[in-house]
Amino acid sequence: MLGKAIDNVRTHTPLIHNITNYVTVNDVANVLLACGGSPIMADEPEDAAEITTICSGLNINIGTLNKRTIEAMFAAGHRAQELGHILVLDPVGAGASKLRTETALKLMQELKFDVIRGNMSEIKTLALGSGTTRGVDADVSDAVTEQNLSAAVSFVKDFARQADCIAAVTGAIDLVSDGETCYVIRNGRKEMGQVTGTGCQLSGIMAAFVAAHPDKLEAAAAAVACMGLAGEIAWSRMEEGDGNSTYRNRIIDAIYNMDSETLERGAKYEIR
Amino acid sequence: MLGKAIDNVRTHTPLIHNITNYVTVNDVANVLLACGGSPIMADEPEDAAEITTICSGLNINIGTLNKRTIEAMFAAGHRAQELGHILVLDPVGAGASKLRTETALKLMQELKFDVIRGNMSEIKTLALGSGTTRGVDADVSDAVTEQNLSAAVSFVKDFARQADCIAAVTGAIDLVSDGETCYVIRNGRKEMGQVTGTGCQLSGIMAAFVAAHPDKLEAAAAAVACMGLAGEIAWSRMEEGDGNSTYRNRIIDAIYNMDSETLERGAKYEIR
Amino acid sequence: MLGKAIDNVRTHTPLIHNITNYVTVNDVANVLLACGGSPIMADEPEDAAEITTICSGLNINIGTLNKRTIEAMFAAGHRAQELGHILVLDPVGAGASKLRTETALKLMQELKFDVIRGNMSEIKTLALGSGTTRGVDADVSDAVTEQNLSAAVSFVKDFARQADCIAAVTGAIDLVSDGETCYVIRNGRKEMGQVTGTGCQLSGIMAAFVAAHPDKLEAAAAAVACMGLAGEIAWSRMEEGDGNSTYRNRIIDAIYNMDSETLERGAKYEIR
Repeated sequence: MLGKAIDNVRTHTPLIHNITNYVTVNDVANVLLACGGSPIMADEPEDAAEITTICSGLNINIGTLNKRTIEAMFAAGHRAQELGHILVLDPVGAGASKLRTETALKLMQELKFDVIRGNMSEIKTLALGSGTTRGVDADVSDAVTEQNLSAAVSFVKDFARQADCIAAVTGAIDLVSDGETCYVIRNGRKEMGQVTGTGCQLSGIMAAFVAAHPDKLEAAAAAVACMGLAGEIAWSRMEEGDGNSTYRNRIIDAIYNMDSETLERGAKYEIR
Repeated sequence: MLGKAIDNVRTHTPLIHNITNYVTVNDVANVLLACGGSPIMADEPEDAAEITTICSGLNINIGTLNKRTIEAMFAAGHRAQELGHILVLDPVGAGASKLRTETALKLMQELKFDVIRGNMSEIKTLALGSGTTRGVDADVSDAVTEQNLSAAVSFVKDFARQADCIAAVTGAIDLVSDGETCYVIRNGRKEMGQVTGTGCQLSGIMAAFVAAHPDKLEAAAAAVACMGLAGEIAWSRMEEGDGNSTYRNRIIDAIYNMDSETLERGAKYEIR
Repeated sequence: MLGKAIDNVRTHTPLIHNITNYVTVNDVANVLLACGGSPIMADEPEDAAEITTICSGLNINIGTLNKRTIEAMFAAGHRAQELGHILVLDPVGAGASKLRTETALKLMQELKFDVIRGNMSEIKTLALGSGTTRGVDADVSDAVTEQNLSAAVSFVKDFARQADCIAAVTGAIDLVSDGETCYVIRNGRKEMGQVTGTGCQLSGIMAAFVAAHPDKLEAAAAAVACMGLAGEIAWSRMEEGDGNSTYRNRIIDAIYNMDSETLERGAKYEIR
C-alpha cells in the first residue's frame, strides 16, 4: 500500500530541514512543496540546530559540503536525533574525495540515520570505508542489472543491517531495504540522469514520506517509486524539442499531481 | 496609478544588489530581469560593500543567513544607506530562530529600511521583538482575513510608524502601509505558496520598483499587486498535468510580459 | 567543422569541475548535462583540490566569490594545471569591484587558462588591469558593433596573445580568438540577456567542448555558436505569454537536442 504514504505527507505537511547542496536546493524545495511537505533550509551551525527543532525531519546532503556546513550537519543532526526526528543522509560523491567519504562515515558513526540514500558507488564506499566514485554519478561497473540483482539485493540488505538503517540504493533498478525485506523497484527512466539533482530531490521527499507515514520501510519505498513514476509520467508529457530542463519541470509537476491511487497503481515493485 | 511604476522600472533599469538566500536566488535574478531591473549578487563583506555602490537598491533577505553573509548585510547596508540607496529587508524566518530574529532586529536598529516585506508571523515577531514562526511560512493563526482585516490594517500601520518604513505584509490579503495610508491588495492565488520563493521574488522586484518610481508607497503597492497579478495570469495559463514547477516559470513569464495597462487594470486594491 | 565538437562532447562525456556562483549553478549543471558533459561542484579548498583530479576540466566563475571559494579556486586551479586539465575563467563582474578585478588578475598570473570568457567590459578590465564595469553586464559603450568590429577583433587578438589563452568575448557579436585567428560569430539573440546566467552556462559548456575536442580554438568557437544557436532555436519555440523563465528552459532544451549537423548548419561565423 505505497499509495497511502503520499496521502500521509499531504495530510501532515511535515516540515523538513534540509542542509543540502546549493546546486539543486531550489528543486529540493519545490519538490518538497509538490509532494505536500514544507521545506526549510538553514546551514549556519547555531541556526541549523535551532531551526531543526521545529521540524519533523532532517535531510543531510553533502553535495557541496564545506567546513561551516559540515559543522551545521553535526549540530543539527545531534539535536534532531535527541528529538526523535527522522534523519536522512544523502552521501553525494562519497568515494570521490577524502573529505566526502570521511564526512559521510563520521555522520554515520555519530548519528543514527533512518534512511541512507545514494547510488551504488556511494553506498559501496560507505560499506567498505573507501571507494573510487567517479564524480557524483555511479560507476558503470556498479550498475544493478537483472543479471547481478540477487547479489545486489544481498549487498543492500547487509549494508542496511550493518548501518542499522533503511538503505535506498537508486539506479536503473532501485533497492530499498531495512536489512530483512528488500523492495526491488523498477520505476523511473534513464533520462532522469540527465536532469541534475533528481537524487537530491528524492532524498528531500524521502524525509517527508518517512516523517509522515508510520511504516518507515514502506514510506521509503513509496518515495522511491513516487520519484521514478513521476519521471515516467513527466516523460510521457514531453513534446518535440523539449529537453532536460523542461523534463526537470515536468518531473516536479508530476509529483505535484501525484495522488495515492496513481502511485499505488503505477508503482512497479516486488519484495525480496 | 500603480501601472506607471513598472514603466519606470523598465525605463530606468535599476541595478539591485541582492544579499539573499541560495534557495531562491536564481528566481530572484530572473524576476528582476523580467520586471525590467538588473540583478547583482555579492555577499563577501568587502565585495558587498563595494558592489552596492554601483547599485540603486539593496535587497537583504535572511533566508539562509550565515556569519559571513550577516557581516556582508551590515557592511553593504551601511554603505547603501550613506549613498541614499533604497533598502529592502525580507526577514525570512524571523521568529523561527534566535539568530534570525536577532539579526533582523539588529538590521532594523542600525539601518533605515525603505521597505520591510514579510509574512504576518515574521512582521509580528519584529513588532514584538520575539516570535514563534513555524518555519518560513506564516502561522495559520496569523492569516489576514476579511474578519480581522481592520485589526490587521491597524497593526501594519502601527508597525510601519514604529519602524519608520513602508511595511508590506503579504498573505491571502496583502497590506502595504507607510503608517498613514494602507493599501489592501487582493491579488494573488493561494497556489503561489506552493512555489518556493514567491516572497523572495517579491522583495527583489520591490527594491527595483521603489528605486525607480518616485512615490515609494505607490511603488511598493505596485510591486505587491504586480506579483499577485502575475500569479493570477500564470494560473490562467496552466494546463492539465502542470504543477508548481511550471507555475514558477509562468509567474516569472507573466512579469516579463506585464505592462502598465495590464497592471493598472488588474490591480485589485482599496486604500484604508 | 564546428559541428564535430559537440559530437566529441557526447562521446567523451567530460567531467567538469565548476567553482561557480550560486545564482546560476543549477543551470550550469543542467546545461552541461544537456551538451553531453557531466558536472561536479566542490568549493571547499581541500575538497576542490581533490575533486578536480578526477575531472577533465575546471571552470572557475567569480560571480559570487568569497574568501573560502577564492582559496578553492587557487587550490583546484593549481592541481588541475599540474594534471594538464582544461582551465576556463569566467571573470564575472571584473571591473565592478576591487576584489573581483584583483582575484581575476591574480588567477591569470598564477594559472594558465585555456579560455577566458567574458563580456567586453570584463575583458577590457583584465587587459588594462582596472575597469569600470557596471555590474555583471557589459557597458553599452563596450558593445561590439559592425562599425567598431575591426578594432574589437584587434583588441581581442591582442588580449589573447598577451594572456596566452583563447579569449572568448561575447555580446551582440561574439569574438573568439587564440591571438592569430578570430572567429566572428553572429548567433544568439538579444533576449538572452534577459535570462540570468547564459554567460555562466556558456563558460560551463566551454570547458566541456575544449576538454573533448582536440582543436581548442574550434572547440571554443563551437561552444559559443552552440549557445547562441540554442538561443535562436529556443526563441523560435516561444509562445504567446512566454517570458524569460520559459526561455531559460528552452535554451537548455535546445542544447539537449543539438546535434552536429544542426550546429554545423546553424553556426553563423566568419574567420578574420
